[in-house]
Amino acid sequence: MASAHGKPGIVCVGLGPGDPDLMSVKADRLVRGALHVAFFRKKGRPGKARQLVQGLLAPGVTEYPMEYPVTTELPVDSTDYVAQLSAFYDDWCTRLALLAQTKQVVVLCEGDPFLYGSFMHLYTRLRERTGTAPEVVPGIPGMVGCWHATGEPITWGDDVLSVMTGTLPEDELVRRMQTADALVVMKVGRNLLRIRRALTRTGRLDAAWLVQNGTTATQQVARLAEVADDACPYFAIVLVHGQGRRPEAAW
Amino acid sequence: MASAHGKPGIVCVGLGPGDPDLMSVKADRLVRGALHVAFFRKKGRPGKARQLVQGLLAPGVTEYPMEYPVTTELPVDSTDYVAQLSAFYDDWCTRLALLAQTKQVVVLCEGDPFLYGSFMHLYTRLRERTGTAPEVVPGIPGMVGCWHATGEPITWGDDVLSVMTGTLPEDELVRRMQTADALVVMKVGRNLLRIRRALTRTGRLDAAWLVQNGTTATQQVARLAEVADDACPYFAIVLVHGQGRRPEAAW
Repeated sequence: MASAHGKPGIVCVGLGPGDPDLMSVKADRLVRGALHVAFFRKKGRPGKARQLVQGLLAPGVTEYPMEYPVTTELPVDSTDYVAQLSAFYDDWCTRLALLAQTKQVVVLCEGDPFLYGSFMHLYTRLRERTGTAPEVVPGIPGMVGCWHATGEPITWGDDVLSVMTGTLPEDELVRRMQTADALVVMKVGRNLLRIRRALTRTGRLDAAWLVQNGTTATQQVARLAEVADDACPYFAIVLVHGQGRRPEAAW
Repeated sequence: MASAHGKPGIVCVGLGPGDPDLMSVKADRLVRGALHVAFFRKKGRPGKARQLVQGLLAPGVTEYPMEYPVTTELPVDSTDYVAQLSAFYDDWCTRLALLAQTKQVVVLCEGDPFLYGSFMHLYTRLRERTGTAPEVVPGIPGMVGCWHATGEPITWGDDVLSVMTGTLPEDELVRRMQTADALVVMKVGRNLLRIRRALTRTGRLDAAWLVQNGTTATQQVARLAEVADDACPYFAIVLVHGQGRRPEAAW
């Protein structure tokens, strides 16, 4: 059943932070050679992963958009949210496993699939159901593209870097920020006001940056203190650079 | 002065975790097209970054090994260490800036250059001295390759990931580990015994992994509890996966 387009199975490809030139050589090869691609998206949206490969897919490729039944409409710890998401992942696990018996399916994921990626939910299910873990190709995480967008290194010397999600309660954000030198806050969106309060309480607001669409043509980099709280996308990242030890220039 | 091999200047290229297939498309192009490459190495060693591009460099490329005057022989906070490193970076800043007036110099760096990378010390100096920041190409950090080597996602749901260096004092390691869900400890080497004690004190030892040379042909993945304390390389990484929220499979 193998073809020039790869042997049957599922390969999840980390696409990196946004710029297609920052995809790995391996990811680029897999994406361009794919005959079947699957990707997550919110209903009615193009999907971030799909957008990243615009212009790279082969003519005639078959696309499988995996549309979340719910995203931010329900609390993530509600029974309804968990049940809907669980059924969604179970269903796509079944469909992809069937397809992969005869075809290579390339699953497109922004950033790195193993860092807060939705594919992880399919990965564990596929491993459990088929007895074999799908191949996963690492990618440059979105946060890495975002700290490069600021033009400043994120960690120096013995700096501790903590990566957290803006969905945490404010007191939790404060507690976690207190033992971090450099900070990355993912999943910003409607959590921006709470993130801002936590940064203020830990004395970090003036050092914080907000980066949207890092490494893409629509990249926006701003000091968080100068940004309004409304209309911030979910995929934006807040970061604070470490200020650790370094040998100063002698001149 | 521009040539087919890029316009004069300095470009630092993040090479990723080890597997050349995981270099970005951009890094691959720059490395293969380079006529002048510089890289850090310990005296008498080939240099990790240089090893990663073995077989990719063009014939006739000129190589500039930048040899650290000192690495682990002196405490990093000693006056002598700081003075020697500072002079070393100052010197290479001068040499590279001169070279880059007429040639494109590609600086090779393993992982991501802005995450604990030595190039950052040249970056800030070059920016200060020339008034222009060198271009830096992001790479997949070594830790990302290492968590993929374990075959398990590093963070789930609202997990906080903390990245720290094994050079921290034991009590500091404990304090930082206590507010982390997922953990990465870089710069392991001779710090392994202290890292192990800190993990034991925070109840994480049994969940910890040691990964050496992740994504390369010599990759080694082991449970830390089953590894001896001697002979661990500096570039090894200790990690603990997060166990955060996820919708379970319904079957």
